[in-house]
Amino acid sequence: MEKWDGNEGTSAFHMPEWMIQFADQKQEFNKRPTKIGRRSLSRSISQSSTDSYSSAASYTDSSDDETSPRDKQQKNSKGNSDFCVKNIKQAEFGRREIEIAEQEMPALMALRKRAQGEKPLAGAKIVGCTHITAQTAVLMETLGALGAQCRWAACNIYSTLNEVAAALAESGFPVFAWKGESEDDFWWCIDRCVNVEGWQPNMILDDGGDLTHWIYKKYPNMFKKIKGIVEESVTGVHRLYQLSKAGKLCVPAMNVNDSVTKQKFDNLYCCRESILDGLKRTTDMMFGGKQVVVCGYGEVGKGCCAALKAMGSIVYVTEIDPICALQACMDGFRLVKLNEVIRQVDIVITCTGNKNVVTREHLDRMKNSCIVCNMGHSNTEIDVASLRTPELTWERVRSQVDHVIWPDGKRIVLLAEGRLLNLSCSTVPTFVLSITATTQALALIELYNAPEGRYKQDVYLLPKKMDEYVASLHLPTFDAHLTELTDEQAKYLGLNKNGPFKPNYYRY
Amino acid sequence: MEKWDGNEGTSAFHMPEWMIQFADQKQEFNKRPTKIGRRSLSRSISQSSTDSYSSAASYTDSSDDETSPRDKQQKNSKGNSDFCVKNIKQAEFGRREIEIAEQEMPALMALRKRAQGEKPLAGAKIVGCTHITAQTAVLMETLGALGAQCRWAACNIYSTLNEVAAALAESGFPVFAWKGESEDDFWWCIDRCVNVEGWQPNMILDDGGDLTHWIYKKYPNMFKKIKGIVEESVTGVHRLYQLSKAGKLCVPAMNVNDSVTKQKFDNLYCCRESILDGLKRTTDMMFGGKQVVVCGYGEVGKGCCAALKAMGSIVYVTEIDPICALQACMDGFRLVKLNEVIRQVDIVITCTGNKNVVTREHLDRMKNSCIVCNMGHSNTEIDVASLRTPELTWERVRSQVDHVIWPDGKRIVLLAEGRLLNLSCSTVPTFVLSITATTQALALIELYNAPEGRYKQDVYLLPKKMDEYVASLHLPTFDAHLTELTDEQAKYLGLNKNGPFKPNYYRY
Amino acid sequence: MEKWDGNEGTSAFHMPEWMIQFADQKQEFNKRPTKIGRRSLSRSISQSSTDSYSSAASYTDSSDDETSPRDKQQKNSKGNSDFCVKNIKQAEFGRREIEIAEQEMPALMALRKRAQGEKPLAGAKIVGCTHITAQTAVLMETLGALGAQCRWAACNIYSTLNEVAAALAESGFPVFAWKGESEDDFWWCIDRCVNVEGWQPNMILDDGGDLTHWIYKKYPNMFKKIKGIVEESVTGVHRLYQLSKAGKLCVPAMNVNDSVTKQKFDNLYCCRESILDGLKRTTDMMFGGKQVVVCGYGEVGKGCCAALKAMGSIVYVTEIDPICALQACMDGFRLVKLNEVIRQVDIVITCTGNKNVVTREHLDRMKNSCIVCNMGHSNTEIDVASLRTPELTWERVRSQVDHVIWPDGKRIVLLAEGRLLNLSCSTVPTFVLSITATTQALALIELYNAPEGRYKQDVYLLPKKMDEYVASLHLPTFDAHLTELTDEQAKYLGLNKNGPFKPNYYRY
Amino acid sequence: MEKWDGNEGTSAFHMPEWMIQFADQKQEFNKRPTKIGRRSLSRSISQSSTDSYSSAASYTDSSDDETSPRDKQQKNSKGNSDFCVKNIKQAEFGRREIEIAEQEMPALMALRKRAQGEKPLAGAKIVGCTHITAQTAVLMETLGALGAQCRWAACNIYSTLNEVAAALAESGFPVFAWKGESEDDFWWCIDRCVNVEGWQPNMILDDGGDLTHWIYKKYPNMFKKIKGIVEESVTGVHRLYQLSKAGKLCVPAMNVNDSVTKQKFDNLYCCRESILDGLKRTTDMMFGGKQVVVCGYGEVGKGCCAALKAMGSIVYVTEIDPICALQACMDGFRLVKLNEVIRQVDIVITCTGNKNVVTREHLDRMKNSCIVCNMGHSNTEIDVASLRTPELTWERVRSQVDHVIWPDGKRIVLLAEGRLLNLSCSTVPTFVLSITATTQALALIELYNAPEGRYKQDVYLLPKKMDEYVASLHLPTFDAHLTELTDEQAKYLGLNKNGPFKPNYYRY
Repeated sequence: MEKWDGNEGTSAFHMPEWMIQFADQKQEFNKRPTKIGRRSLSRSISQSSTDSYSSAASYTDSSDDETSPRDKQQKNSKGNSDFCVKNIKQAEFGRREIEIAEQEMPALMALRKRAQGEKPLAGAKIVGCTHITAQTAVLMETLGALGAQCRWAACNIYSTLNEVAAALAESGFPVFAWKGESEDDFWWCIDRCVNVEGWQPNMILDDGGDLTHWIYKKYPNMFKKIKGIVEESVTGVHRLYQLSKAGKLCVPAMNVNDSVTKQKFDNLYCCRESILDGLKRTTDMMFGGKQVVVCGYGEVGKGCCAALKAMGSIVYVTEIDPICALQACMDGFRLVKLNEVIRQVDIVITCTGNKNVVTREHLDRMKNSCIVCNMGHSNTEIDVASLRTPELTWERVRSQVDHVIWPDGKRIVLLAEGRLLNLSCSTVPTFVLSITATTQALALIELYNAPEGRYKQDVYLLPKKMDEYVASLHLPTFDAHLTELTDEQAKYLGLNKNGPFKPNYYRY
Repeated sequence: MEKWDGNEGTSAFHMPEWMIQFADQKQEFNKRPTKIGRRSLSRSISQSSTDSYSSAASYTDSSDDETSPRDKQQKNSKGNSDFCVKNIKQAEFGRREIEIAEQEMPALMALRKRAQGEKPLAGAKIVGCTHITAQTAVLMETLGALGAQCRWAACNIYSTLNEVAAALAESGFPVFAWKGESEDDFWWCIDRCVNVEGWQPNMILDDGGDLTHWIYKKYPNMFKKIKGIVEESVTGVHRLYQLSKAGKLCVPAMNVNDSVTKQKFDNLYCCRESILDGLKRTTDMMFGGKQVVVCGYGEVGKGCCAALKAMGSIVYVTEIDPICALQACMDGFRLVKLNEVIRQVDIVITCTGNKNVVTREHLDRMKNSCIVCNMGHSNTEIDVASLRTPELTWERVRSQVDHVIWPDGKRIVLLAEGRLLNLSCSTVPTFVLSITATTQALALIELYNAPEGRYKQDVYLLPKKMDEYVASLHLPTFDAHLTELTDEQAKYLGLNKNGPFKPNYYRY
Repeated sequence: MEKWDGNEGTSAFHMPEWMIQFADQKQEFNKRPTKIGRRSLSRSISQSSTDSYSSAASYTDSSDDETSPRDKQQKNSKGNSDFCVKNIKQAEFGRREIEIAEQEMPALMALRKRAQGEKPLAGAKIVGCTHITAQTAVLMETLGALGAQCRWAACNIYSTLNEVAAALAESGFPVFAWKGESEDDFWWCIDRCVNVEGWQPNMILDDGGDLTHWIYKKYPNMFKKIKGIVEESVTGVHRLYQLSKAGKLCVPAMNVNDSVTKQKFDNLYCCRESILDGLKRTTDMMFGGKQVVVCGYGEVGKGCCAALKAMGSIVYVTEIDPICALQACMDGFRLVKLNEVIRQVDIVITCTGNKNVVTREHLDRMKNSCIVCNMGHSNTEIDVASLRTPELTWERVRSQVDHVIWPDGKRIVLLAEGRLLNLSCSTVPTFVLSITATTQALALIELYNAPEGRYKQDVYLLPKKMDEYVASLHLPTFDAHLTELTDEQAKYLGLNKNGPFKPNYYRY
Repeated sequence: MEKWDGNEGTSAFHMPEWMIQFADQKQEFNKRPTKIGRRSLSRSISQSSTDSYSSAASYTDSSDDETSPRDKQQKNSKGNSDFCVKNIKQAEFGRREIEIAEQEMPALMALRKRAQGEKPLAGAKIVGCTHITAQTAVLMETLGALGAQCRWAACNIYSTLNEVAAALAESGFPVFAWKGESEDDFWWCIDRCVNVEGWQPNMILDDGGDLTHWIYKKYPNMFKKIKGIVEESVTGVHRLYQLSKAGKLCVPAMNVNDSVTKQKFDNLYCCRESILDGLKRTTDMMFGGKQVVVCGYGEVGKGCCAALKAMGSIVYVTEIDPICALQACMDGFRLVKLNEVIRQVDIVITCTGNKNVVTREHLDRMKNSCIVCNMGHSNTEIDVASLRTPELTWERVRSQVDHVIWPDGKRIVLLAEGRLLNLSCSTVPTFVLSITATTQALALIELYNAPEGRYKQDVYLLPKKMDEYVASLHLPTFDAHLTELTDEQAKYLGLNKNGPFKPNYYRY
């Protein structure tokens, strides 16, 4: 604020460095990595495609079968072989998982019901690339019920549930995914989804942007028939904004990552629970009376702080943004610099989206038994690399828990090697996944049915009315009863009785 | 959601009915109302200009002096008589009040300090129309210290603190305001601010839009020299959007009402405290175990619900917006229709901005001793008019507390006759007013110093960086220590180290 | 813990110094104090008899009448003159207040109903000495309905509501009390209650022990007919334990002060609300983000801490007892010594029952604008006397609010001159008073009806079953539905289906 | 409350039915159960001795070795063979576990330090019967450091950590315990601890009362030399009160179960965390918005309610005790009968200590997917037996999670088959165990060193000063700083500066 005329209020989209670097690292398909360990490998595909996912454990043990699915000949019970999964025989177990998930995804089931007359996705040919779980299966089968044809690959080489993939293949979905793909497998699967004779996608559902990236690289002409892209992840959305900024986005894209319901549920409400869950499962610690510093007071930080305060911890907050900082103050947290409290805290939690928030210097100053973990978006918030030095001893004490031991005997307890605690050490409730999946379905419907001209070659937020609709589909879960505006009230407020109810800038 | 192609996502600004009606009711200056009671009178000027304000009680008793200030000849100690206040002799008392307020408005005092070298408002001629309180005086004197000349009237006929007005006049500010103006006085005072020989305003600071309205009506040419309007109230902002939409806004205007800090502080944080304060001061009730229904789960409703839940009340929520409804569920409140709980609740609180939310039918069904009050924006949320019927007896039991008694003896306890509880029955902390005043000062500086072309003839939100700056000026109050980005981190995030730190759509 | 054989676990009743001193200060009746200011006067009667009581403000203004009630001849409408009140003509106003209170004291009204057949207090002659308020009136009239004859004096020279006293006198109750008694009046009124021809009390209801003390001093033979004493205050209870220890207690006494419901309601739940109320009414401060130190983590401290934490304050706790200290830790409060935080806190609250907890040295080190107040039991927790020195300036800024100003301009904000904040600056909800009054009524019934030998000449806690009964009478207020044990369950637990449900040492 | 003279206030200890039955079921040693399943077996030893304990999982896999430890010949590295454990070779691993536990049990380590000069247990011969875990090992080695000789058996046939037992044996402790003992093994191990040539215990540390019971049955003469019993469990304490009541208790016994710190930590604070942990680990459910009914509002219920409310659940409470019921109301929970909400709730939690609180009728009326679990003291709170009927299908979906399926397809989710959720599905933090172990150590010291006559043949609560001392030893963990009374303050309060600080009836 040196100069009074400074104004950057329009806040154009900033292209962060990590996204730029990231894009450069993309490699070509079929350059088979030889003798390269997983660590280097994982840098060549999107980060999200290699993050491990704790709920992604395979339900049944199939470790005995080491044959690559690409080398197998499999058919489902109807003789169809247009898929590639670990073991089609696991279909029955996967089907039961899908049925259980259906019970907890009432919104998608309601969409299916509504679609019994009308098929809003009739004619849609959707190619998808997401985690393949029971919840995704409910989404895919819903898209099918709404009239769409689907082909699907996994967006993460570890997260596929083989049994679910088998169940989908058995039901006739061309699915190409298994747990433990190599990078080459990863791109091969994606290619099998789009490179098909006599079938060309007209919609893309992506999670991380790898599918979109592949089509751009390999089949750019395909975009002529594509009506739109629906993208769910932070990473993928940023890539789309980059494309848009560079004038290279050739179809409309829907950013479902920033929808209100997704933001609040995935971040505030879900993290409020998963921070406790992740810490308990890994350390069995007691929260009462513990001193905790939470770095970052965005939605994730707010959720973590609220939960820990409620459990009797004493919580400090660090922030770079003065508005979030003031919120932290008003919510009853002392706002400090990390250095001020680093010697006294029992737990350090990062929720910033930034890098090197916890440095080796901080780690050196922590007290014995201090727990360090990351709830933010990447695995660089804690400078874990700086701990890989000879004078420090690493001791794996449990799955996802390392003791890092200083020469003087001091230990710090590092969770999930600095990767996301909530993905690695806790589970994501189906209810949260239901909100995301419903949003994806509605975004596909909107883009597919939008009249000519409503959407240009740009990145759009979900129309508020859609966001409200997703929310309304989840209210019955809570036996919640919405009030309707009277005609008189709607007129008084200048609103349509069916919404949208808020201006776009409303903050909730 | 009958049709799949429905999309109202752009959410153009809706012109609510009450704003349209309101504009039509504006009357001409000097049509002196004769033999018209205050009630009808108050409809001819903006609603906010007649809302009573509990903290606005005059500190010293001057009820003996019935002469209209307009008929008095007064000079300050320097012989200046360009002002009109109740009694210039009250200046000393008012000065002390201002000094106390200065202690609690550190952000404005910091601005003064920074301006010792540079005068960002040098040459500015600001005409203002706001509540005239000690806090406003600190703002005015800050504007003066920053280089501006000011002339000021009151935006509310009841809220002027005569002693403060006297102190300002004594210091040389041309102030035209006193407690208990008639409507004619109200417009006369405004006119005296703008209709001056040899002085023409180039900036407007308005609260409610009456000053802006007056200049439009009487001195439209004045806008040629005006660089911008800063408007603080919901009502005034809506008027500006109307003008803009009608193509009649001829200067840039800054909507400070929707700044983040103001929204969160005036609504969420302030109401979290004032709901308890207002209920206690009026009824001395115990909150523990009480059943409460809160109508509306916006920022105000969220604040009320959080406070009452924390005090051991059992809180139900009604909502029309499914997103806010889902938030209420996740925050632990049962979402109901008012009818479902109206017979059982001990307290009904409206926070909707809507009208007739609590109808006579609801009132008829409430149980004995039920308390009814309004924390929303207007006095029509509760249909108080419907209670003015012969079969019901009104009993004033305390200031701002009426018992309305049904023929069968049932009483409901109506607070502030359905007007805003927090304005009528509690006080607004100086700290909140400090945030608003600082925002106003920065908005004036921004508009006054903006290079040609930055702002068009439109309504703007405060640049995010300004919002962040206001927040940062208030952090020292909490001894809060902000973290600074390293160069490396700023580069990684693609951010300027000094902000803004968030995209415009960020929800906080 | 130097020696391993140390054991003081039986925790015999300790006689605190202040009680001993206190007893010595008792003076003789009719030593009319001449030219003695209130300060010295107040030391000669029990402290509680001079504590001011904010809700005790007289409803109607009768300041013009300066005649002492003792010098007036008054009769009620039935010609009865066995009373002494300020003005019998205020009876009608007082009656309305009593009627309003009746609505909020459902438990006493339920007792009246039950007593329509049986009169458990038939033959009881109760002499009482309590605050005389609408709530007390409901108690007295309930005792009457249960069969008792009553005579009543005030336990505090300021707290009598003259209108209520008048209403009671009009209804035939011999009441001797008015607002603003002298010390001589105080004892005279008590004497008029007990020194009556042809009437001798057989039960005592006391609050503070002054009535009991008077009978001991003047009419010790009266105890021969007295069946028991019910005492409500900390002070009075301590006096009774002293008498018991000294072997001088000649009738059974019931300590209702330590009943569970009273403890939890008067302390935990009531203070949870009144700390906020008292601070708001006096200072209009904002709680969010404020740093507060609460001295003492007993029930009162627990209530204060919970409320302030919920409102977004950052709360520190000091304690001498390691068990309470550990509770504070587990509840999420940093446990500190006062010195550690005294420079940084915005508010200091004492809840210890101890003296000189906040010393002049602490006061000297507080930061500017620090608020200091007392929620504990006496007015010595803050060493206010130490502030009465020439170099400090006192400025009364509002009722109950003083600024104490240091030579360098620093101000601290002292509330209620260090007396109890919740009595001085907030109100006590009728619901809490209802619990106390019901407990008193049941204790009287129990002592009056107890078979020979159940109670000796000792101090008793209320039988747990009575405590449970008081609680059960207040559940309907919350529409709360209690579960009943089945016969099988009662047998399994070894409990009577009607209670008591817990062993005596149960902590709730 | 029919009769006014009813008084059960002295609340003599009630002997619950289940305790009486329980005692009758005790069987003789060496009646080797043949072909009897675990279910019937578990009724012949104390319930607590067969409750499974999730943290009790063996660290290393030794399932290959099926030889009974009783049939093995093992020696430790010093040639000593006075022990019986699974595998002495696991000692090193167990030692590391003990060292980790030492870090989190600072109070016991502090006791060791203090004992470097003086040995308060010199000459003590302690026989112990507790869970054998790393934390117990820290206790045993502390007792050794304080001068005692110890012999130890396990109080539970499943809970022994073989590695820890090996480490203790390696260090020279005569330990007789392994995971998976038969009932015969169980009594054999106990017998090996007491039936030793040339060694006779003079102190007993018991958990569940089985050891005490054994000595009473087999070696009653041993009590002549025994100075006292320290008992930790509810069950064991009740047995001792029975003995005392029957006049059969021949030594003093210390009830450490009812110490303040243990009660508050094991119940309120620990359950506040373990309810969330247990539900998450078993069901991955989301708490926000869920409707929950908690049966019972004692310390456990209070902890559960507070946690779930904080996580955004809507919580209902059932109670039989009107005092606890009123507390629930004031804490913001609707008090209902189970029937009122059974159809609508998502989760049912029992915390009553009672039986058949949730009946088959309730279970029949629950909605689909309702979760049912028990946090109370026994496994009969939910009538699980009633679900073992042919028309219902049980489906084990995870460890500790069963779906019980009604003919119409409705499923309820039953956790831990109705046994204690917090023992079965979550872990107990070391910090809580530290408090218990420290209390046990101090109780042993107190009884062993008490001068003749301080304790009779009765059951005693821990002297308050000891309780305070345990608390004080745990404050450093929280960097908590206790305030000390000045001499003047101690005199004023009539207290010793070192405590005890509260009367015995204080409720905390």
